[in-house]
Order: sequence, then C-alpha cells, then structure tokens
Amino acid sequence: MADRPPPLSSRRGFIKSGLIGAATLASGLAARAAGGEEVITEIQDWNRYPGDGVDARPYGKPSQFEAHVVRRNVPWLTSDTISSVNFTPLHELDGIITPNGLCFERHHAGIAEIDPAAYRLMINGLVERPLVFTLADLKRFPRENRVYFLECAANSGMEWRGAQLNGCQFTHGMVHCVMYTGVRLRHLLDEAGLKSEGKWLLAEGADASAMTRSIPMEKALDDCMVAFAMNGEALRPEQGYPVRLVVPGWEGNMWVKWLRRLEVGDQPWQHREETSKYTDLLANGKARRFTWLMDVKSVITSPSPQAPITHGKGPLVLTGLAWSGNGIIKRVDVSVDGGRNWKTARLDGPSLPMALHRFYHEFDWDGSELFLQSRAIDEKGFVQPTKEALRAARGPNSIYHNNGIQTWHVNKDGVIENVEIS
Amino acid sequence: MADRPPPLSSRRGFIKSGLIGAATLASGLAARAAGGEEVITEIQDWNRYPGDGVDARPYGKPSQFEAHVVRRNVPWLTSDTISSVNFTPLHELDGIITPNGLCFERHHAGIAEIDPAAYRLMINGLVERPLVFTLADLKRFPRENRVYFLECAANSGMEWRGAQLNGCQFTHGMVHCVMYTGVRLRHLLDEAGLKSEGKWLLAEGADASAMTRSIPMEKALDDCMVAFAMNGEALRPEQGYPVRLVVPGWEGNMWVKWLRRLEVGDQPWQHREETSKYTDLLANGKARRFTWLMDVKSVITSPSPQAPITHGKGPLVLTGLAWSGNGIIKRVDVSVDGGRNWKTARLDGPSLPMALHRFYHEFDWDGSELFLQSRAIDEKGFVQPTKEALRAARGPNSIYHNNGIQTWHVNKDGVIENVEIS
Repeated sequence: MADRPPPLSSRRGFIKSGLIGAATLASGLAARAAGGEEVITEIQDWNRYPGDGVDARPYGKPSQFEAHVVRRNVPWLTSDTISSVNFTPLHELDGIITPNGLCFERHHAGIAEIDPAAYRLMINGLVERPLVFTLADLKRFPRENRVYFLECAANSGMEWRGAQLNGCQFTHGMVHCVMYTGVRLRHLLDEAGLKSEGKWLLAEGADASAMTRSIPMEKALDDCMVAFAMNGEALRPEQGYPVRLVVPGWEGNMWVKWLRRLEVGDQPWQHREETSKYTDLLANGKARRFTWLMDVKSVITSPSPQAPITHGKGPLVLTGLAWSGNGIIKRVDVSVDGGRNWKTARLDGPSLPMALHRFYHEFDWDGSELFLQSRAIDEKGFVQPTKEALRAARGPNSIYHNNGIQTWHVNKDGVIENVEIS
Repeated sequence: MADRPPPLSSRRGFIKSGLIGAATLASGLAARAAGGEEVITEIQDWNRYPGDGVDARPYGKPSQFEAHVVRRNVPWLTSDTISSVNFTPLHELDGIITPNGLCFERHHAGIAEIDPAAYRLMINGLVERPLVFTLADLKRFPRENRVYFLECAANSGMEWRGAQLNGCQFTHGMVHCVMYTGVRLRHLLDEAGLKSEGKWLLAEGADASAMTRSIPMEKALDDCMVAFAMNGEALRPEQGYPVRLVVPGWEGNMWVKWLRRLEVGDQPWQHREETSKYTDLLANGKARRFTWLMDVKSVITSPSPQAPITHGKGPLVLTGLAWSGNGIIKRVDVSVDGGRNWKTARLDGPSLPMALHRFYHEFDWDGSELFLQSRAIDEKGFVQPTKEALRAARGPNSIYHNNGIQTWHVNKDGVIENVEIS
C-alpha cells in the first residue's frame, strides 16, 4: 500500500455532483442518513488505486469477505476421523445451483484421490460381454446434461427426536443441486448386453469403504447416469472424481462415488448399506427398507437461525428451497404463524424435474414474534407432512427420510431458533 | 504413506471373482487388453487405504489431476499489468454452467476488493428521489434467478485478421454462463421515481477504471438486473463483488462490475467505452456504434486445438456451445468437410433464453482429415454467418462482434489447428 500512486483528482468533481441527502424510500425501506453516505460521495480506495490483477488468478476463489460461507460439520454426528459429513451452507446461498466448492459431502473412508489415467469401470455379472471402460472410453458415448438435487437419506435425521440442530445448514444441509454431465447407464449396459434374468444392479465404489448398493434394473435403465462433470467441470474429489453414479430423485447413498464396478444380478445383494443402514425400524418391529425415493420437502433458508433478521421492521425477503424425487414442485406455501394461515410463495428460476426449486415470499415484518414454516407440493400431488404425522406413521426409531415441515421461531429482535410446535 | 495400515485382505476374493478377458465393444470402441486391466482386477491404493478426510475442506477445490483446467491469458493482447483478460477453458468444460472459478474475466484497473459493509449504490440524475442503497437494502427487494451467457464484444476479435489464436479458449473463451441472483433494475428505478425525460441510464463501476456505459432505458426497464450472486454464492471479486449489472444478451462491457452509481439522463453520455472503444470503423469511414446485442454464434469446443483426438479412429463425440442475444437457439448444424455438407447437431440440456446451449454430434471417425465447423440458428431466424460474409459487410478494421463460423482442421493424427478456408 505504501507505493500507491497519488489520488486521481480528476474524478473528484464528477462524484461531488452526485451529492444526495437522506431519502425515504417509497417501499418503506429504512432511509440512509446523509451523514453516513460518505462512502458513496467520497472517493474510496477501490476507486482510487488499481486493484490486484497482475496474477491471472488461474482458478478463482471467493472474496476474502465471504470466508464465513463454508461447509461445516457437526463433530458429534460421526464417530471417527475417516467418516464425516460436511454440510452445505444453505442459509448463505440463493438460486438453485450449488457452487461445487460448497456442495455437502459425506464420506465413509476419507476422500479417495484417484488418478484418472488409472481409472477403470467394470461391468460384469449377468451380461453377454463383461467389459472394462477407461475414462476416455466413457467419454466416447453420447452425453447428457441434467440438473438434479442430491439429498442424503439422513438429511434432517436428527430432527426425528425433536428440534436439535440450530440452523438449516445442519438440519437440511445434506442436499445440493448441480448440472451433471455424463452418459446414460443404459448405453453402457446395452454395450455389455444385459441377460434377461438381470433385474438388479450392484454399484460399487473404489474408495476404501467400497460403498455398495443394489439398484433395481428398471431405474438403472430409466434415468441413471454415469457422470464425470458437475457444473461444467470435472467432478470434485469428494464428489467421486473421476466418475460417480447419478440416481435422480433417489437417496444420495445410492449415487455411488468413485464408481468402479457395476454387477448385474437377479436379486438385491443385501449389503450393509441396505440392511444395517438406510433402513428404519418401525414400532411393529419391521423395518422400512429400500426406501429409495426422496419425498417432497422444503425448508426456509433465510431468515433462519444462522441468518437472523438484522434490519428491523419493514420489507423482508423470506426465501427457501423445495424439492421432490417425484419430479417438479407445483407449489410452496408459507406460514408465519406456525401453520394456522398459509400463503402461496413465489417460485422463481427454471423448474426442472428432480432439481431444487427456489421460492420467495416478500412481506412487511411488523416486529412481532413469528413461527415460520414452508410446505411443498409436488407434481404428483404429494404434500410435505408435519413432523407429528411422520412420527405417528413411522414410530420412534426412524433416522432416515424425514421430510417433515420445519419451524423457525423469530423473536422480536429478529433472533431465530429451531423449534417444534404442537 | 509410510504409516499406512496393512492391506484389507478380506476384499481380495470379491475382486478376483470379477476377472474378465479382453472384450470387443458392440459400438466399435477400442477393446481393453486383458493384460492392461490389472488396475481393475487388482486392489488399488485408493481401495486399500482411507483417503484424506480429517480436514473438513470448508471450501472445496478441484482434483490435483485437473490442475491444467485454468483460465489463461494471452500476454501480448493487453498492454499493461492492470488491464488483462483471462479466458475460460471452454475445451475442458461440458454442459452449460460455467463454474465460478473458471469464468473468464476482463479487468481494466485490476480487481477491486470491496468491503461489502462499505458498499453503496447511488441512483441520481432525472429521478424524483436520489437514493443510496446498501447491500442489505438491495436484498430487501424481490429477487430473481436467471441463467445468462456473458460474452465480451471483443470475443474472437483477433480472428477478424485471420486464424490467429490456436485454441477455443483464446478464440472464443471470453464467454461464460452462470445463474445470477439479484433484483430487477426496474424495482430500484421505480423506488427512485423516474422522470418522464429519463431515457438513458449511466452505469458506473467502483473500480479505479470507473467503467461507464450508457444503456437505453427501455432495456434497463425490461430485463436488466442488479446481481449479487452467481451460481448460488456471492459474486466473485473479479466478477464485480459485491454487485454487478446484468444486461442479458448484450455485450459484456455493459455488465458494469463493482456497480456504484446509476444516473438517469435524457441522452447517452458518449463515454470512452462507447466512442473510442466498443465501436468498429467501417470501410466508408463511419463507425458502427451502440452495437449492444451479441449476435447468434457457436463454436466446437472438442475436438479443438487444445483438445485433439487422442483415441484414434472410431466413435467420436463432437461437442460445442451456441448462444444468441436474441433468445434461445433453435438449431445447430455441424460440418466435417468445411461447410460443404451439414448435419443437424443434438441440443442437450435446458434451453434457456440468452443462455449457452450445449450441442453434440456423435460420429465414427475414419481417420481422414477433417474441417470442422458449426453454425447456429436462433429463435428469430438469425443464422451465424461465415467470416467472409462478415468481412464483406464490415470492412477490414473491425475488432468487435465477430460471430463468424470457426473452422478447425483435424489431421490424420488427430492434431487440430485453427484455420480459415475459402
């Protein structure tokens, strides 16, 4: 900074001509006091001195002022150092695309770093021709691009036992939404030649946890993809670089990362992740299993516990996300009184099947206590249930597939907490 | 690596059962030799040892194996250290979303680093109420989310003088496409109260170049946005953090970054960037000026000079991008013989107005020499012209708005060069 050039005084007169006084906005937004407006009527350092630009910034980074916008974990949720989940900061984001650096990630044996030159995908089992593909081979098949949400079946899982985690990053942050580029699985299975008795597919990961899940062949041949890019660039390491499975609308655990093998069989494999895990014990002693589809769900991302109201009364933008494994979202309702009265929120942005949808509800906050809720309805008519209704149906032992309505309590100071009301 | 645990021998038998021999693919893809498949039949390090995962990777980065996927500049293009352009690596990307870290950026006085707490936007001139907004104020207006391409008017500018830059990163890399979140400009102008004689808008940047452009009020009130987020997160510093103007379909220079002031006037301001720059001298001595709209255009991104064909003959995926300031792309044609014969390419992904469109053309390469071209047609019927046609119409002095058809020459080894044919 010591070597900066002298001020560019030629711009002074121009700026002074724009001098303004305090103004009252027609919308009722708080007026800016004239005395506080020196930052616009006086030349600032960024107007005066050239910024850094000599380095080409080959791969860009967020502003230094956005250092708080990061994935976060909950230390007590995962028991050891190689199994962890890092949550998307939903309260800081807008739109429906999640930037790659902030997509939540769940790993079971650390993050595999796979040399793409040594990457192979095997297809074996009930096929005419067992095959092995390199990454270059996969890129010679017809590609497609699709925007999909990916939600962990355990998203909101802690909330089965009541309001526990104070922020949508933690209650709902195991979801993200990107544009995937890849090859339809059916092209690869056609290449291998499916045998008629092949009704199930085993997907196996190349990391040290060797994640394995059984997928019904009907889904595999419908819309599943073998993806190698997200939001235009190569998959990130924690998202399965160089290749992951994409299972649109179904639970994230099935979207096997670091995909190394697809085996065709005549029945499910009953692996750990579909017997011990990703199942819910019902009150009658039976377990809900193979609960693949992610049900209709929504959450208000701002205001929320990590994004309190700091501007006082007046115009307020309430926003949130809605999604459904059944397709597109038809409507989102919002309540500010804990579900007694509902208003239809405004959906904005492209409405794409099995993608996140962004909703807004603008209103004047009078400074009184609020109980904020959102309720999504999907194209098949499914309505997001209350937590009470979910608990009544599934008993006291569930972990997965909690798509219940979330409540945020706003106090008169704009401070917000995760609560349950009945 | 020295402290790694012993091999997990329990997985050995499982892997061995998947043993395969060499296979010939039905599609004619090169078969993998069985001897080369030890990487799939033998346990790799990433299967055997847990990966790094202890750190939460609060903000993720690309794989170490993708270090070549970066923005690049052309040192001789810009004359000093504070004015530069860093091009999008289009040849490495897929889909229609550009990841934030790879969006091309052009700066005229370095990259301003603005403290969002000290950010102000002024509206003055022919308005009832001159206003100053903080960033928090802007976020209290109704928001929208739109996917738009942003192309510099000088994109492909060097190619007016013939095939000069050997790669689509350099010939066409001043374009990117993200989802913007922000506020419609008309909400802010309504708040200030436009006077009836206000027909033009001056947008001024807060960086040391104080970029200034005149925008007709009709466009400003139609679809322009004041944006604060891209692909879900805050704008990047080099894209105008915390706020930039979005002028859909129009030249990138008008999308003023680090937006500090909007002045309403009754005529254009005739600033440097609309008189000396961003104009083209015609053969008759007159200049083309206020050429805001970016015309229909396309380019094949792979194969291309930086993405040669390395797999030899057989199935080849040709892919590229098309866009138009007039709206959506209706069709893209592809030629492999320099424009003598054309085939309709396959458009894939959401088709959004004034956004990038991704196209593919899959064919079997017989190993012969090719002259690859693409030609886009937009919803208003505009057809991408040849470079000859452009030069005939605009004379020998143009720099901006080159939307001519690009030719890549492929030799028998799959090596590719930027050429012109006639």
